[in-house]
Amino acid sequence: MSSSAGPASGPTATSAPGRVVSLLTDFGRQDPFVGVMQGVLLALAPDVRTVDLTHEVPPQEVEAAAFWLSHCHPYFPRGTVHLAVVDPGVGTTRRALAVAALGHLFVGPDNGIFSSVLARADAVHEIDAEQMRRQLRAHLPGASAVSSTFHGRDVFAPAAALLARGEELAAVGPPLTGAPPVLLAKHDAPRVMIVDRFGNLITNVDWPEGAEPPRLSIRGRGLRSVRTYGEATHGECVTLRGSFGTLEIALRDGSAARELGVGRGEPVVLHGPRRDEPA
Amino acid sequence: MSSSAGPASGPTATSAPGRVVSLLTDFGRQDPFVGVMQGVLLALAPDVRTVDLTHEVPPQEVEAAAFWLSHCHPYFPRGTVHLAVVDPGVGTTRRALAVAALGHLFVGPDNGIFSSVLARADAVHEIDAEQMRRQLRAHLPGASAVSSTFHGRDVFAPAAALLARGEELAAVGPPLTGAPPVLLAKHDAPRVMIVDRFGNLITNVDWPEGAEPPRLSIRGRGLRSVRTYGEATHGECVTLRGSFGTLEIALRDGSAARELGVGRGEPVVLHGPRRDEPA
Amino acid sequence: MSSSAGPASGPTATSAPGRVVSLLTDFGRQDPFVGVMQGVLLALAPDVRTVDLTHEVPPQEVEAAAFWLSHCHPYFPRGTVHLAVVDPGVGTTRRALAVAALGHLFVGPDNGIFSSVLARADAVHEIDAEQMRRQLRAHLPGASAVSSTFHGRDVFAPAAALLARGEELAAVGPPLTGAPPVLLAKHDAPRVMIVDRFGNLITNVDWPEGAEPPRLSIRGRGLRSVRTYGEATHGECVTLRGSFGTLEIALRDGSAARELGVGRGEPVVLHGPRRDEPA
Repeated sequence: MSSSAGPASGPTATSAPGRVVSLLTDFGRQDPFVGVMQGVLLALAPDVRTVDLTHEVPPQEVEAAAFWLSHCHPYFPRGTVHLAVVDPGVGTTRRALAVAALGHLFVGPDNGIFSSVLARADAVHEIDAEQMRRQLRAHLPGASAVSSTFHGRDVFAPAAALLARGEELAAVGPPLTGAPPVLLAKHDAPRVMIVDRFGNLITNVDWPEGAEPPRLSIRGRGLRSVRTYGEATHGECVTLRGSFGTLEIALRDGSAARELGVGRGEPVVLHGPRRDEPA
Repeated sequence: MSSSAGPASGPTATSAPGRVVSLLTDFGRQDPFVGVMQGVLLALAPDVRTVDLTHEVPPQEVEAAAFWLSHCHPYFPRGTVHLAVVDPGVGTTRRALAVAALGHLFVGPDNGIFSSVLARADAVHEIDAEQMRRQLRAHLPGASAVSSTFHGRDVFAPAAALLARGEELAAVGPPLTGAPPVLLAKHDAPRVMIVDRFGNLITNVDWPEGAEPPRLSIRGRGLRSVRTYGEATHGECVTLRGSFGTLEIALRDGSAARELGVGRGEPVVLHGPRRDEPA
Repeated sequence: MSSSAGPASGPTATSAPGRVVSLLTDFGRQDPFVGVMQGVLLALAPDVRTVDLTHEVPPQEVEAAAFWLSHCHPYFPRGTVHLAVVDPGVGTTRRALAVAALGHLFVGPDNGIFSSVLARADAVHEIDAEQMRRQLRAHLPGASAVSSTFHGRDVFAPAAALLARGEELAAVGPPLTGAPPVLLAKHDAPRVMIVDRFGNLITNVDWPEGAEPPRLSIRGRGLRSVRTYGEATHGECVTLRGSFGTLEIALRDGSAARELGVGRGEPVVLHGPRRDEPA
């Protein structure tokens, strides 16, 4: 590496093995966009280990991305850098953020994708895009085609790499000033956030461990609550505490989404005792 | 790591580089389920390197998973931990197994997925699910939402991580007692096990290196045998010795599955000299 | 490792962390073919780190693969081994190549996939397939089923592993003699090379940084040039300098491919000042 600020010299430098960078985008895997981001990460932070969280976020769906980031980051080692690129607002004045929160680091656009962790942030910095491009060029002199359209590769990956090398937040840019970071409008309304591969409906209704099952209806249909899929009868849609601590609607041996004919965004109605809402 | 049984202290601890964990599931890659399993692996075994074998096993298809595990594990370094999560029987009394066989380690549900390696196992242990959940919580205190529905993350990944750290099988639970492990019914009947991406039909008919080509028909149609795809004429379905040592049916420049109109499970008929079965 | 030429002994041996191997194939990820290639890489080169460039190259589309290799390799660390397996010509006399060029190494079939880097190659060797199979067997004695159909696993992965261990090109075979390496016919004709996941049309029209926008029409339709997606109006197809330094056609908030009804291979027409072609 040509940089003088190598992995071993920073005050918070990690020892081997290198830090983990999780990747969450809406790029898919058909094109090599994610691969070149990993190339940049490895060029700037040779010890880094990358994990694909998902690259199949529906294009531009910041809210789904925010939901997964919020619920998945606790399953990664402390100090993991979570690199999230969905709707980065290329060509607009959207800022790029680096956030330290809850023992983790988050790198991505200022579009609400970090809504859930910003409230508990220790520090929020604004990434200096031009400085990141210079970092990329310094480490990858053959990569002349630094573009104005691929921030994931040219801005966010270098920033994540610097943090994965153990450098301070200040290495990627100054503390955020001006307008506070964007937060997603608080869609408190209980609803389906994710339809997973199996057709389970993952809602945003928190269900703390040990709490009574929330009583719920969807499309006017009340659902029985079970502890695990195995307790449902064949063909029955049920609610259960999902694996990320929120209420989930599942159909044993089938797709609840198809059975109920609902998708992402579908409202659900809660009936006491935990909430008091009109049915 | 907070555990006293770190990578360096165990009697069989590996030196760097860390062990390999291969992952085989039916989770797909649309949702971040595989990613969080990798997060757990890295949290409990920081040196681990993971390889995706496949996450596109058709949901619940234990037999296809068993076929791939059996035929793929020899291409990984000795000591690799093969973590397989298909149809784990969440909410049932299905046991979780850790198996040492053939110089490799296998972690997954007791549903027949390890049928082919169990016959040659050196040791079979029953994973203590509650102990694994405690391990996860000890290493990931922020991950409060340990669930009763995601055994891949909460039970199997911690077990694989302990083994990848070089700990003994006993670290994940006691030797298996009670009923013997589940084996898939011996479907000796020759048939199509896998339809691969290219439409090749991979059968369970063993074809030892150097042996005469098995003579075969499918849907009443006899097929010529060739050594490589290149020997087939355009538009001709042929049999050849596939890359995992079993008989494969292929169509040059096309999909044999589409041409023959057959899928997984389709029976094939063998005609001497190696087997003697009614045509 | 049983080989005497281990990572530490070669004159160009890398220090930890291990070298990067990028993988580009048309295998998809449904089957475990890529996974077993990674197993072989890790068995022969325990320190290696692998990155998936893409495995969704359309089957046999050497030209698309060559385009991506040419434009993506500069974003990887110097010394990266780029392992590309598309249309390897199994069962033909097609040669297997190892190429040193531009500070990178390239391993794959002699079918034009390395066209753009061969002109600037420092060395081209012919991989000795039988020697690679022996290497595989030496490191993976349980992998008896070395096949004549899966060169990616049995020939190319071992070659990439040796190079990733820091061995010289000569370790995989002698300098190429006989016919010069295959080059893709120079399709200078400006056209669409890639339709990406978002429906953007990536062309082969170079657009150097800072140069004037090339004026272009497609299907008789002239397009306005912008600097970033954000400058286009809703529903407008525009041209811009894409992230790999070539001209790209994009539709704001939509798919240019669908809007224009064109796909890969579609010709584009350039109008001065940079080229002088009939409209």
